[in-house]
Amino acid sequence: MKIITASKYRKELTKSRGSIEKNAQLDEAVLAILSEVRKNGDEALRRYTEQFDLVSLDTLRVSDEEFQEAKGMVSPEFIAAMEAAKENIASFHQEQKEHSWFTQPQSGVMLGQKVTPLSRVGIYIPGGKAAYPSTVFMNALPAKIAGVLSIIITTPPQKNGKVNPHVLVAAEMAGVNEVYKVGGAQAIAALAYGTETISKVNKIVGPGNAFVARAKKWVYGEVAIDMIAGPSEICVVADRTCHPSFAAADLLSQAEHDEEAAAICIVNDEETARLIDEEVNKQLAALERKQIAEKSIETNGRIVIAADLTEAFELVNLLAPEHLEIMTENPMEQLQFVQNAGAIFLGDHSPEVLGDYFAGPNHTLPTSGTAAFASPLGIYDFMKKSSIIHYSQAAFSKAADSIATIAKTEGLGAHARAAEIRKAASKDR
Amino acid sequence: MKIITASKYRKELTKSRGSIEKNAQLDEAVLAILSEVRKNGDEALRRYTEQFDLVSLDTLRVSDEEFQEAKGMVSPEFIAAMEAAKENIASFHQEQKEHSWFTQPQSGVMLGQKVTPLSRVGIYIPGGKAAYPSTVFMNALPAKIAGVLSIIITTPPQKNGKVNPHVLVAAEMAGVNEVYKVGGAQAIAALAYGTETISKVNKIVGPGNAFVARAKKWVYGEVAIDMIAGPSEICVVADRTCHPSFAAADLLSQAEHDEEAAAICIVNDEETARLIDEEVNKQLAALERKQIAEKSIETNGRIVIAADLTEAFELVNLLAPEHLEIMTENPMEQLQFVQNAGAIFLGDHSPEVLGDYFAGPNHTLPTSGTAAFASPLGIYDFMKKSSIIHYSQAAFSKAADSIATIAKTEGLGAHARAAEIRKAASKDR
Repeated sequence: MKIITASKYRKELTKSRGSIEKNAQLDEAVLAILSEVRKNGDEALRRYTEQFDLVSLDTLRVSDEEFQEAKGMVSPEFIAAMEAAKENIASFHQEQKEHSWFTQPQSGVMLGQKVTPLSRVGIYIPGGKAAYPSTVFMNALPAKIAGVLSIIITTPPQKNGKVNPHVLVAAEMAGVNEVYKVGGAQAIAALAYGTETISKVNKIVGPGNAFVARAKKWVYGEVAIDMIAGPSEICVVADRTCHPSFAAADLLSQAEHDEEAAAICIVNDEETARLIDEEVNKQLAALERKQIAEKSIETNGRIVIAADLTEAFELVNLLAPEHLEIMTENPMEQLQFVQNAGAIFLGDHSPEVLGDYFAGPNHTLPTSGTAAFASPLGIYDFMKKSSIIHYSQAAFSKAADSIATIAKTEGLGAHARAAEIRKAASKDR
Repeated sequence: MKIITASKYRKELTKSRGSIEKNAQLDEAVLAILSEVRKNGDEALRRYTEQFDLVSLDTLRVSDEEFQEAKGMVSPEFIAAMEAAKENIASFHQEQKEHSWFTQPQSGVMLGQKVTPLSRVGIYIPGGKAAYPSTVFMNALPAKIAGVLSIIITTPPQKNGKVNPHVLVAAEMAGVNEVYKVGGAQAIAALAYGTETISKVNKIVGPGNAFVARAKKWVYGEVAIDMIAGPSEICVVADRTCHPSFAAADLLSQAEHDEEAAAICIVNDEETARLIDEEVNKQLAALERKQIAEKSIETNGRIVIAADLTEAFELVNLLAPEHLEIMTENPMEQLQFVQNAGAIFLGDHSPEVLGDYFAGPNHTLPTSGTAAFASPLGIYDFMKKSSIIHYSQAAFSKAADSIATIAKTEGLGAHARAAEIRKAASKDR
């Protein structure tokens, strides 16, 4: 890995990470697909599925028989592991649940906030060669717990026209039985606008390739979306008390995702840097996905040597990593220095992979520095709020003059009138 | 107003409200501005301010002298009204505050959620002829209460090169002293990318014209945004117990905003429809902004006659109005039927204008049906969450096999290895 100084890394971080201008070509393709699906519905979905997934489908929706068939194709170990994960994920998200509330700040005044689940949510699950049953859980379980009545999944079919059995089993375990074999920007279009078989949703969540991400950006506003996910990152803060082999294993688990993934390690002495680097090289050799991990480590991997942990956490907050592991002598104590991170893993036995699959908090996290302003996916993504306002006649009469004064300052006469007409009517009585 | 049946209105509602395709020309202009400001910073801001606001500025930032000067230009009544509003707005948003939490679901396991304010927020305040001091409060006060350290305002200068004094006084009352004379898409670019004098923010909030809204859509992802606001709406549900003159006044207060604003009234009998329509015509004649209100009422105004209140609330939930007023015999009781609305105003003495300026809940609300998935602006918009995960060695050892099983199912060997390497090390001891 590249071992660099804190000041050099600080410079790297100040470069702007994204660019809106470079996407003109991608946009053209994505907008064409959105517009086609909007106009031609299912027919367009079938056409794009033939073109991109190389499979011709009569029925887009996964049948009950296919769900049954899937169950026979997965191992009992997989089911047991997923059962355990499901319990953890469900119970963590249960803790996030918000409630409607009221307050009575003065006589005759009642204010509050009503919390309501979204009606209909669409989850995009990537397909192709890989299968992501964990992504099904991380998106569907919070929606279910929030109380969303209608949850649907779209995912690209495999070349045999089926959906990966692990994905189907996870969907059924999460209580989702409406699964459609549609991928790419065409799936996002179907979820946003609706077609003959897929009804329009209120919100689209879930990860996807560049086409999916860009399509989500375009339909944003018409429907809600979770986020526009970029490449995945890990930042490990370690001191000389860390296990270099653990730190290296975690850096590599990030690097194997894809070549654009970034594995960053921040240490406070050169010796720790050297030991972790050695371990990375040693473990890299044994990986199945060695080529991808190697490319990611070469391009985006960094070991940064900070003067001390104070500087280390300054860099963390500038980076705002998706995943932050703290492997120092007193990880709990250092939690207070973290401003910006998607998920924070404390100690030697809390690797990122624990959060990816099992511990309970969501693995859908803000990437590419967006942890400076965004949160993990959660119950709050599937519920919305309405303000509640009630004033009695007496309470309103007292407020009317102030209201009319502000309305007139803003040049809005009919606003002022709505206050004054009530005050006048109160006097008449 | 057009008086129509419920079934006719249902049909109107099923039409898609927005269109992404029609914006190609607007996009070209907006993207050119974004790119120019990104490249040329302050110089580009000055150039666009000359071009669009017809004023040449040496200094973009509002000076202390200008703040002082503004105070001398507003009335004591305005200050008093704003003081009262400020107290209400601050105390309502205080109730929304979220706290970090921890849970210990089993021995050796600690999970939680850390809540942190955003560091830096930019507020866009529309300018030109109108002044919107209430918008300053509704955006700046929640940010302040959330704990945002750095809050800045951008607003287009008047032709005399100054910012409206009511806006400046409101900014100072809300504790914001960093105000820049920049408007339009160029202001959004400055907030998103930073220039020599304006540093990049984490989130951009506040309303604006089509250029501003579109620029926010484009920078979304690079920074967070509150929403892409469309035209404003009100929906009044009324029965024969309502005051037709109050209902009419509130419909008109919405209609005077702009010609695209929509005033919808849903009643359960023809007589109430007739009485409200009469009142609308009567009051319309006396309005200062008659032309705008008249156009809005003609184009988008509707009185819908539903069979009963059950059908009325079905229509409300389809419409998902920004503002909902319930003027029926038992408004509190009917709260339970509301699924989708930005703010709900209960009873005869809780007009929309009360919420616009004074009661406390935010007036930045989801428009154009987005209340089906979005919430009012709130404290939660200025805070973000980080998940916290800690497992002890013993707790992780028990979980390691399940984690490795799921990782292998997903074809991610280095993920499995990060679990297995820890389990192996635990056995060695």
